[in-house]
Order: sequence, then C-alpha cells, then structure tokens
Amino acid sequence: MFDYKLLSALAAVVEQAGFERAAQVLGLSQSAVSQRIKLLEARVGQPVLVRATPPTPTEIGRRLLNHVQQVRLLERDLQDQVPALDEGGLPERLRIALNADSLATWWAQAVGEFCANHRVLLDLVVEDQDVGLKRMRAGEVAACVCASDRPVSGARSLALGAMRYRALASPEFIARHFPTGVTPAALARAPAIVFGPDDLLQHRYLAALGVEGGFIHHLCPSSEGFVRLTEGGLGWGLVPELQVRGELARGELVELLAQQPIDVPLYWHHWRNGGELLNELTAHLARTAAQTLVPADA
Amino acid sequence: MFDYKLLSALAAVVEQAGFERAAQVLGLSQSAVSQRIKLLEARVGQPVLVRATPPTPTEIGRRLLNHVQQVRLLERDLQDQVPALDEGGLPERLRIALNADSLATWWAQAVGEFCANHRVLLDLVVEDQDVGLKRMRAGEVAACVCASDRPVSGARSLALGAMRYRALASPEFIARHFPTGVTPAALARAPAIVFGPDDLLQHRYLAALGVEGGFIHHLCPSSEGFVRLTEGGLGWGLVPELQVRGELARGELVELLAQQPIDVPLYWHHWRNGGELLNELTAHLARTAAQTLVPADA
Repeated sequence: MFDYKLLSALAAVVEQAGFERAAQVLGLSQSAVSQRIKLLEARVGQPVLVRATPPTPTEIGRRLLNHVQQVRLLERDLQDQVPALDEGGLPERLRIALNADSLATWWAQAVGEFCANHRVLLDLVVEDQDVGLKRMRAGEVAACVCASDRPVSGARSLALGAMRYRALASPEFIARHFPTGVTPAALARAPAIVFGPDDLLQHRYLAALGVEGGFIHHLCPSSEGFVRLTEGGLGWGLVPELQVRGELARGELVELLAQQPIDVPLYWHHWRNGGELLNELTAHLARTAAQTLVPADA
Repeated sequence: MFDYKLLSALAAVVEQAGFERAAQVLGLSQSAVSQRIKLLEARVGQPVLVRATPPTPTEIGRRLLNHVQQVRLLERDLQDQVPALDEGGLPERLRIALNADSLATWWAQAVGEFCANHRVLLDLVVEDQDVGLKRMRAGEVAACVCASDRPVSGARSLALGAMRYRALASPEFIARHFPTGVTPAALARAPAIVFGPDDLLQHRYLAALGVEGGFIHHLCPSSEGFVRLTEGGLGWGLVPELQVRGELARGELVELLAQQPIDVPLYWHHWRNGGELLNELTAHLARTAAQTLVPADA
C-alpha cells in the first residue's frame, strides 16, 4: 500500500498553502514535513510540488491529492462502524468549487444544517464553471456547482434548478441615462458592469434586444461588489434576484425592462465513488436547492 | 518614440484576456492583433506574452503595460485642453486592486459619483494586500487599497481610515456551541470561518483571548459568502460591521463578546506621476472614505 504519512504531508502542504501551517496542522516540525515530501518525491521519481508561494501540486501531485481525497471520504464511511480507527477525531473537510453568485446567495442556506449535523467543514473555492470542472478533473475538489451539465469522467451531475438574473440599475442611473425610457440604443451607450471576461450575461441581454458588438463596462469580479456598484449608480448589470430582494422591494434597484429575466441552470457535480457523506450531501442538496432556485426551463 | 499601435495591442490582449476579444475592442482582425504582438516581440527581442488562457504578460511585457497605463493617464490630462487628440472618445479605464471586504462595503459609495461625473470605467481586481502591492510594483494596476502603509517605489500611500470587524455568529450557533456563555475554551472548539490562508483575523481574536494554536474552520474566499455561512450557522467569524448593519439590528447575527472589535487600517496606494485624474480621485477618496470608515488608531 501507499505510505499515507507521506501523502497526508502533501495534502496538508497544499490545503494549508504552506509548509509552516502544514506542520502546525500535522503537529510536526517544518523540516519533518519537508522530509516527507522529499521522500514521497524520491519514491514517485519526480516532483510532486512546485515550491512557490503558495506551493502548488505538479500534475502527478494533483493525481495523488485526488486519491487522498477519495480515500478520506471512503474512510469516513467506515469510521461510523469502526470508530476506533478514527485517528484525530477532527471533522471531515469537503473541498467544493462553486460560482461566486451561488456562494453569495443560496448555498449556505442549502447546506448549513447538513454541515452542522454531520460535523463537516467546507473548503470552498470560488471558480467560474470551466475552472470548477477542471479542478474536478484534476481531483482538487470533491464536488462542484456550475452551469454546465456535462460531468467529467468518473463523476455525475445533478440539476439543482436555475438562478434568475434581472437587469438592474439605481433610480439615479436610470434617470441620468434613460430620461426618455430604456431603449436598446440608450442601453448600448450606458456603462454596464461585467463580472469578468467570462461573464456574458450582459452581452446576452443586449443581444436579445438586438444590440450587437461591444459596449462600455466596468469590470468587478465580486458578487457583493457588483451589487454595490449597481446601487452606487456606476452602471447597469444582471444581478441574481435572490441577492437583492430587499433592494428591489425598497426601490433602491429597479429592473430596466419589466419581466425580462435570464435564468441560468445550475448543476451539482460529484464523484461517483465519493463515499456515503458525499451521497448524503447530494441527496440533501437536491431537496434544499429547489427551495430557493427557480425550476430550470429544460 | 515607441510604436503605440503595438503597445495598445499588448494592453488589449491582457485587459481583454484573449486575442479574440482584443481584436473586437480594437476593431481589428485577430491575425492583425497577433502580428502586432509578434512585431513588438521582434523589436523588444524577447516574448512579451505567455500564450496561455488567458494570455499573461512576461516581465518585460508587464513593464511595457505599466508604461502604457501611465501614458494613458498623462494623455487624459492633455485631452481636456486638446480634445481633437482624443481618438476614440471612450471613457478612461482605471485598473485598481482592492481587498474583497472594501469592494463589498464602502468602495462603490465612495467612488460612485466621481466615476459618473468623470466618465471613468473601473477595472477592479480583488486581491489581498501583498498581491495588490505586487501588482502595483509590476505596473498592472494604477492604484491599490490595502492594509499596508508602505508604498512601492514611485508610489504614495494615503491613510483612508479603518474597517471595523466584529466576531459574529447566528443565535442558533451560539445556543448550540455556547450554551453556558462564550468562553475562550468553548470558542476554540467551535468551527470558525476563515476567508483564506492569509486571513489571520480569527487567529488574532482567539490569541487576544489567550487561545493559542490551531482551530477547526471552514474556508470561504468570498465576502458575501462569509456572511451567508455565518448567518447559516456554519461557524463564527470576523465580519466588517459595515456589511451587516441590518443583520445586527434584526438580531440575525450576534456579537460573541460585546464590544471587542478589531480595526484594520486601510491605505490608498497610487502612482506619484499618475496624472491629474488619479490625483483628483485620491483627493475625492480622502474625503469620502472617511465618511464610512472609522478613524484609524495610529
């Protein structure tokens, strides 16, 4: 069998983003952690870590991490029956990639009770969908929430529902840029807010109105920052309805064109052999996500 | 003089995160953009871009980008006097790095009016302080908000005030983990929420109570997600007071120990020769940030 002391050292250095913190978590000296990594590399015959700040796994390192993560989840299933095998008694960690808007809205409500009852700690990674799935494939996360339904090899995907986005702006912004009403031409000239290069929601909204080509925009890679910029009158943008119920009710944000939402479907990707805990979380999410998300069109 | 057609192509590829979008923005074909980059590299005698997804500048590429950014800001000063020189008539873009909590709270309110009146578009980059200053040094951003007061060479720093953080949890979490009151020992056993490996606020809070060593925690690299997890009862954590005024007033979040905030000072770093627009924004921020931040201890 593999030497799991060495593999645990690798996992700790990557999860704790450094040798010093890894040593703290493992209760070892820093040089002991270094030695275990070196021994692992000697056995594997190639480097498992890129020594940068923070240290990152090499390709073979990522494959080993994937293996450690799966073994940990399988061990957990056994621990309920053979509690004496449980070394540390620490809660289980689940590393999950999800999109920023899910984390800013429905995620905590959907998993809160589950995590508290099952003593699960979350390592959340905020990624857009392509990167999230890439991290699944590389074995860096146990599960992933994203807008793509195509599972990576060895994983399953489950439809959770859809996030409803509405094109919103502040009343001042609307008065300033659309004094005679929101027309496609006026909208194309007003500054938009875009989350990042991969956020095409504003493009889709304009395209549906017949506006093609580029448009001026702020870039704001933060869900809450996006809402704050919209409220601050810097631009218009597509915002998850879930995130701004209060602002909409109080009239601090106004929909540009009534009842023209964009629904983005969301999927839960999880390893097929991820163990009982991941299966239970999947079943739990299937129930709770539907309470806050809208039904997907499909 | 430098050939600014070539330098603009480099800036567009990096700012738009790809050749295709750069071509759209410049109104050129993709192969024309490629050729300009190749010509630039032939003149410089080395690569200016790493062809990855997205393309990233090499060290010499970053230095050229810094130069382009500074030239653009200086051009802007002149355009008020010589408007005919203004080629595109597009609003100016300012690339600014700031910490997630600032973007989630006071930032939009402090700069909204300025950006609307001066037709400024923001390219915001969310980074913790060390990376933000590294991006300043590399010339990738024009300014940066962070907790360090030491300016990089060629830049100035301005004290803006401090963000006040309070250790909060949901009433259910407090009832579950602290049935007999919040004691340091009980706090050390309850799950915390930590933003990322560089977030030491929870460590500082525990250390001030005499708790040393590690503690179990969720990792959640999102300001709004952090608040949602806290509300959802997954853990306790230090949250900016500005972000949760409503939740505190409604009793949805409760301070663990009354009146033990942590104040984190914030500084605005900007290039010394950044042009008039950056100087005006700096003067504006000095006034507006003080309206929402608390006075720093220093």
